[in-house]
Parts: sequence; structure tokens; C-alpha cells
Amino acid sequence: MTTDTRQQAIEYAHQNSARFLSDLNQLLTIASVSTSPEHKPEMQRAADWLAAAMRKIGLENVQILPTAGHPVVYADWLHAGPDRKTVLIYGHYDVQPAEPLEKWLSGAFEPEVRGDNLFARGASDMKGQVLASLAAVESVLKQGALPINVKFIVEGEEEIGSPNLSPFLEAYRSLLASDVALNPDAGMIAPDIPTIVYGLRGLVYFELHVTGPEHDLHSGLFGGVVHNPAQVLCELIAGMHDAQGRVTLAGYYDRVRPLSQQEREELARLPMDEAYYRQTAGLSETWGEAGYTPAERVGARPTLEVNGMLAGFTGAGAKTVIPATAMAKISMRLVPDQDPDEVHQQLLAYLQAKAPSSVQWELIKFKGSAPASMSDPNLPATLALGRALEMVWGIRPVLKREGGSVPVVGDMQRILGIDSVLTGFGLPDDNLHAPNEKLHLPTWYRGIDTLIHFLYNYT
Amino acid sequence: MTTDTRQQAIEYAHQNSARFLSDLNQLLTIASVSTSPEHKPEMQRAADWLAAAMRKIGLENVQILPTAGHPVVYADWLHAGPDRKTVLIYGHYDVQPAEPLEKWLSGAFEPEVRGDNLFARGASDMKGQVLASLAAVESVLKQGALPINVKFIVEGEEEIGSPNLSPFLEAYRSLLASDVALNPDAGMIAPDIPTIVYGLRGLVYFELHVTGPEHDLHSGLFGGVVHNPAQVLCELIAGMHDAQGRVTLAGYYDRVRPLSQQEREELARLPMDEAYYRQTAGLSETWGEAGYTPAERVGARPTLEVNGMLAGFTGAGAKTVIPATAMAKISMRLVPDQDPDEVHQQLLAYLQAKAPSSVQWELIKFKGSAPASMSDPNLPATLALGRALEMVWGIRPVLKREGGSVPVVGDMQRILGIDSVLTGFGLPDDNLHAPNEKLHLPTWYRGIDTLIHFLYNYT
Repeated sequence: MTTDTRQQAIEYAHQNSARFLSDLNQLLTIASVSTSPEHKPEMQRAADWLAAAMRKIGLENVQILPTAGHPVVYADWLHAGPDRKTVLIYGHYDVQPAEPLEKWLSGAFEPEVRGDNLFARGASDMKGQVLASLAAVESVLKQGALPINVKFIVEGEEEIGSPNLSPFLEAYRSLLASDVALNPDAGMIAPDIPTIVYGLRGLVYFELHVTGPEHDLHSGLFGGVVHNPAQVLCELIAGMHDAQGRVTLAGYYDRVRPLSQQEREELARLPMDEAYYRQTAGLSETWGEAGYTPAERVGARPTLEVNGMLAGFTGAGAKTVIPATAMAKISMRLVPDQDPDEVHQQLLAYLQAKAPSSVQWELIKFKGSAPASMSDPNLPATLALGRALEMVWGIRPVLKREGGSVPVVGDMQRILGIDSVLTGFGLPDDNLHAPNEKLHLPTWYRGIDTLIHFLYNYT
Repeated sequence: MTTDTRQQAIEYAHQNSARFLSDLNQLLTIASVSTSPEHKPEMQRAADWLAAAMRKIGLENVQILPTAGHPVVYADWLHAGPDRKTVLIYGHYDVQPAEPLEKWLSGAFEPEVRGDNLFARGASDMKGQVLASLAAVESVLKQGALPINVKFIVEGEEEIGSPNLSPFLEAYRSLLASDVALNPDAGMIAPDIPTIVYGLRGLVYFELHVTGPEHDLHSGLFGGVVHNPAQVLCELIAGMHDAQGRVTLAGYYDRVRPLSQQEREELARLPMDEAYYRQTAGLSETWGEAGYTPAERVGARPTLEVNGMLAGFTGAGAKTVIPATAMAKISMRLVPDQDPDEVHQQLLAYLQAKAPSSVQWELIKFKGSAPASMSDPNLPATLALGRALEMVWGIRPVLKREGGSVPVVGDMQRILGIDSVLTGFGLPDDNLHAPNEKLHLPTWYRGIDTLIHFLYNYT
């Protein structure tokens, strides 16, 4: 394996960049929205498309493995020899719903390049990242062989919390045996700042229903005798934060690992200050837990968010109704060492204490909750990836704790006994989970080069 | 005009009861939802149907008069002579939206009789009441002549707050000149308690929009730096009531006319206690402003209600989004002598004081707000109606202050200079503005008899 081979792989990637983009465009036209049952055929189409693409570039043992939900696509190339490292490359082919559709400037599943960006649902999160991995493997395989063994799993349920991934990992423990996982589902801080993520927040997701009268009531005939469920829901939600932006659930911070002085200093070096977040999110001002910087609040502190809310009449015009019921979707991002089940109990206890007897309520916990995770920044694979990023970008990558949740990281640690190295070539303004999701193409192409270098570095 | 004639009119009504019901069924199949633009053709069909029905029973000068919104149907019969009283019978042919459709046991616009009740949107509010008035006039006209002069106006915008009725009344002031208005859009307390309403609450209706980030954000990447607009909306709504159930807007109660001791005693005689409201509304317990009985809270105290609320992702499944915007529909029922414009200013002042600078907000006031109204219970028409109710039910009617709003009552007072006598043959469990709206048919038939007696009594 000479430096020439490495250089030839990079050149192959550059010569095939237009085709890599056209492959990505194909995959992005498939509306693989995992949360909505009506998209199930599209899920299968996306899995089929990936399996075919994997076979085409010379991966072997390609299989679409069923789960209780959407299937997992598996492939490998294991001819580097048993003395070589084996990396398990993770991805997901499912995407978030595209709603609200009317806010997209081009069709969510009709990819369109405008300037340096490719716009489509899933372009950044994470079909683009999956195909960058395949493009890198293809570029190296075309030079004859990979320097390490590679296994791929691309799942179809990440956006709904990977509810069936744990049993899958259990069932295929030996098939998936590897030294480390490479997970390109994390993003970069900025186009010029390559990033490795060593910590992730966990997630727990609920639906809270408050019910009052048996049916909707006329607000004239009954206004004055009914505790309006929408008002009660608002009172309950309003009470979940105090004036300092802290979550009020009793015990919520008890298990939160305090930030060390060293970690606070490192996070302070990230270029993610108030101004950064104001600009990236389009905010007039930031908000959050008092006593912590924005990077600390997003990376290392837990949060509680209302993700959706619905009650009564929401169409055009006026309807004078007291709604019978009100609903909110509420989720929490957790940090080490919060426990999702314990947090569930804390929310239940809050509701038991605060909900008035004039209404009924129900708290539904969604499947797929996950604790936070952290890994050692000195893993060989992490160092190999760091060198690869530096080769392409010319600067040493930053190490970051990420605000998002990647449940598979904890699952792989627990079930397969392997750590994950997290990176990715998405940017903060990629509009993940929002209208006009996009992928910054120059960064994406650099990502392909980086993954080629990683395959040569991790030996 | 002999007692025989009166008796013959009553008999005519009884002989034609099945046809009266079949007429009502026809009108109820027309989905005349005034608030939704897509139902505009149905609005015209309902107006046409009414005009034809009026012509058929011998009313004259039948016209569908345009307004800036939906038209008003007019008809009269003026041959009793200039020395006789003239009553202006008011009605509306528009109905509330039928959503949520899946909660109806039979189609909202496919009237179905089950037991003693006729189920359909508008059966009680108020196509049933309008056709009871026409049935009474028909029954008397068939005996040769009416003992008094009668004018009808049936509008198409009551359920959206009658935004174009004031200009209409101004424009047709002389056409509509009358001694009194009869408005059967109020209901009864119970099937065995005939009711006359002498007070109505007013209404003012708003939409409040809270906006944070430019677009929806990923709750992992941004949770901790964004003041969630749904949370802010909840905080604002939660602050609008205190722990005693009072509305907190500064000055909100300043103009509220206190209940006299006599009025409190009268209201205490109404059979509308906690148990009544628990049962009628299907509540585990009632709620409201401390220090007042349920009948006082609904009839004589102002309220503030959330009528609808929408933010973020509300479909099935989990979407980890921080919504860019959150919306609530909020309305207030007003009592004498609150002023809708002043209350609007009070809500604006509250939002200016309480909304955090981390979000933007906008308050939209809907057209069609109206102050509360009260009339003299000793008007000749009120006494005539009271005797009519007693003739049919065998007991003296109760006098009540109603929680609903009928803006036309104030408009007629102001523009035409006439008081309104309010009654009606709907019941509290008719599911007004809710799924499975129904009309209690035995009460409805008694209502027709009552209106026949009224036409003979008010001379």
C-alpha cells in the first residue's frame, strides 16, 4: 500500500465527483420517511437502492436484514486479513418528515443544486454522509483492495429513535464484530473547522395529553365553569422551566456530570458563542440555562423542549370552542449520567404533583429513548480520523460534545462492546429536520477525501 | 281573531309536524359553514333554500340581500295593519365547522334521528330555531292572516361574529323598522324549564402568534440556546389567569358591573349548580373564578379561553424539532360594561409587559367583536313570550343571563333602536359547536306551539 495508491484513490474520487452527486440525487428522490406508515414502500425502495449500490462498488455479502420495523442494509469487505483492523461504518437511510411542505423553495424529494448547496430532505442527514462513505470505499477498492476490513450497517429507523436496533445488534453480534464504529452522522462546526465528536446527548420523548370535558364545548355556554385543557397544558408546560431557564423537575440535575474546568476551557475555544447561534438559528437573542455558555448548554447540559402542541380549532377563522383535549410533544436531551427511565419518573412525579384534579392527563413515553454517551478522544480510530481531517483541511480538528442524540452509539458500546468515532460533513445551517435541508457540496467532497485518508490511516 | 283560530293554528302545526321535520332535514344537509371559503356555494344554497321556503308559506317581499360577506335573507308579511305591532324575527342560516369529523356518530350534514333527538350540525344552532319560527308563522297564516306584522332577517355570518351585519342594519334601517326583535338563538336550561334571556355576554376574539427562530430547528443541535416559542406561548397563556381563576389583565374587571343582591338571588334559583355543569359538560369537577357560583360565572362574569393552539410537529410519531412559531386562538366573553376595544388594549399591554425579548409576537384581533347586552324583562314582547311559554309548558319561564354572545342584539339596539326578546328551544346538552350536535324534537315541537301563541299574545 503505497502513498501512490492513496493518491490514486483521491484522484479517482475527484474524477468521479459528478457521478457521486448524481448517485446522491437518485437516493434523495426516495421519500424514506420512517415515522409515517404511508411511506413504507419508499423505505423498502431506499434499502433496495442502497443494497444495489453496495454490490456495484464491490462490497460483498450484501443483505437487507429484516427487523420488527424497517430493515437494515448490511455489506462487508473482509479481505484485508484477520490481522488488520475492522471498522463498522454506520449510517441511516431514513429521513425526517418534510412538513411543512409549503416552506420548501424546491421539492423536498426533488433534489436541486443552488450555488454550492444541494437541497433535499436527507441531503445532510444523512444520505449524503452514507454516500460519502460508499464513495470513499469505492475509490479505495478501485485501486485493488482496502487496507482494512470494512462492514456497513445502514438502518432505517434513526429518525424515530432506532427502536429496533438493539435487538438487531444482539441478533447479529458476531456478524458485526469490529474494532470500532465510524459514525458520520455528526456534523461540523463550520466549513473550515473539521470536527470530531466525543460526546452526545441522550433523548427521551413523550406525548402529554390533557383532557377536560367529554367533548368540545361552546365557550359562551360553558366559559366560566370548565378548566380549559389547553390552558392547563400551558400551565403545566410553563412550570417546567424556572426564570433561570432551568428545568424544574425534581432531581433532574442530580445525576448530571459537572463540567470540569479543563472541559469548560476546551469548549470555550469552540467558535460557538452567542453571535454564532443568533446567526445560525436566525434568532434575535439566545436563551438558556443561566451560568453556562451556549456551547456548554448545547453540548453538556440537559434540556426540555416542546416539539409540538395541538388543541381545539386551528383552522382559518374563529371558532368559539373550549377544547375537550390538548396535546403536547415534549422531549428532553440528556447528558451523562442521566437515566432516561429516571427522567421519565421525574416527569410523572411533576405531573402528579402539579396537574389539577379538574382535568385528566396521560403521559405516553415513546420508544427509542437513549442515555447520553461519551468516548475516549485518544482511541486509535479517533487519532486516525483526526489525521485524515488535518490532511484535507490543513488544520487540526476540534473535539466537541454534540447536542444531538445518536442512540446507536450507546447501543453499540453496550451490545458490541465497541466505541464510536463520530464525524460528518454536514454544517450547522443545513436545516436538519426543517424545510430546505441542504448539503454544502464543497464540504461533502472534502469529506469523501477525508474518509479515503481514514481508510489508509487506520491500519 | 278568536281562540278557535289560535287553536286551529296549533292543530295545523301538530298535523304538519312530520313535514316540518322533513323540511328541517333538507336544510341540515346543506353544509353552510360560514368561516371556510370553500363552503361559499353551500352558503348560497342555504340562502336560496330559505327564500324558497319563505315564499312557499306566503311570506312576501322575499329577498336575498347581499352584504360584503354572506347574504341576508329577508321576508315580511305586513297586512295586520299599521296600528298593529311589528316584530322582527332574527335567525342565522350559517353553522360552525363540523370538525373533528371523526367524532360524529352520523354525518354532520346527514341528519339522523336517534331516539328523541335529531343529530346534525346546525340542528339546534340554529336552523331548527329558524324553521320553528317559519313553521309557527305558516301555521297562523294558514288560518287567514297574522294578528301582527312580521319581518324576518336570517343572516349568514353569526358564527363568525356577524362582521357585516351592522352596515346591513344601517343600510336597511327603514325596511327593518319594527317594535321589537324576537331572537330564538338562546336556549333553554332544561326540557322542562322554559327560558327567557335578558342578558348576553359580549365577545372579542384574537389570534396570538409567537415567533422565535427563522425556521424550525433540530432540538439536539439547538436545544439550550433557543427560547422555544411554544414554551413562551405557554408561559404567556399560563400567566393570563391567577390561582383564583381570575383573569390577570390589568384593568380587566374595572368596568364589570357588580351583581346586585337581588340578581344573585334570582340566579341562585336557576337549577344550574356544580352538579348540573359536571353532568352537562362531562366534567370531573367544575372550575372558575373564586367567589361566584357557576350560574354567575357563566352569565355575569367575564372569561378568557384558549380556543385553539398549534405549534411544531403534531402528526403521529416523534419529530425532534424546536418549532419556529406557535399560535393560539384566544377569546374573551365580556359582561356589561366592558368595552371590547379597551380589553384589546389590556391584552396588548399584558403581552408588551410579559413577552420576553427573545421572541417576536403578533396579536391579531378578529372582526366581529361585540360588547355584552342586557334588556328590560318587563317589555310587552317579553311578557307576551312569557305567557306563551307558560301556556305550553304550564310553568312560568325563568329569566336568565346567558353566557353566549349574540352581537346582533347590541347592533339592533344601537342601529334600529329596538330591544330583543331572546328565547329558543335548544338544550344545554345539544353539543353546540361540537361533534354530534342535536335537537331535542319534543322540545322543538313545543317551541313551534309557543311561537304560535306568541304571535297571538303580542297584540
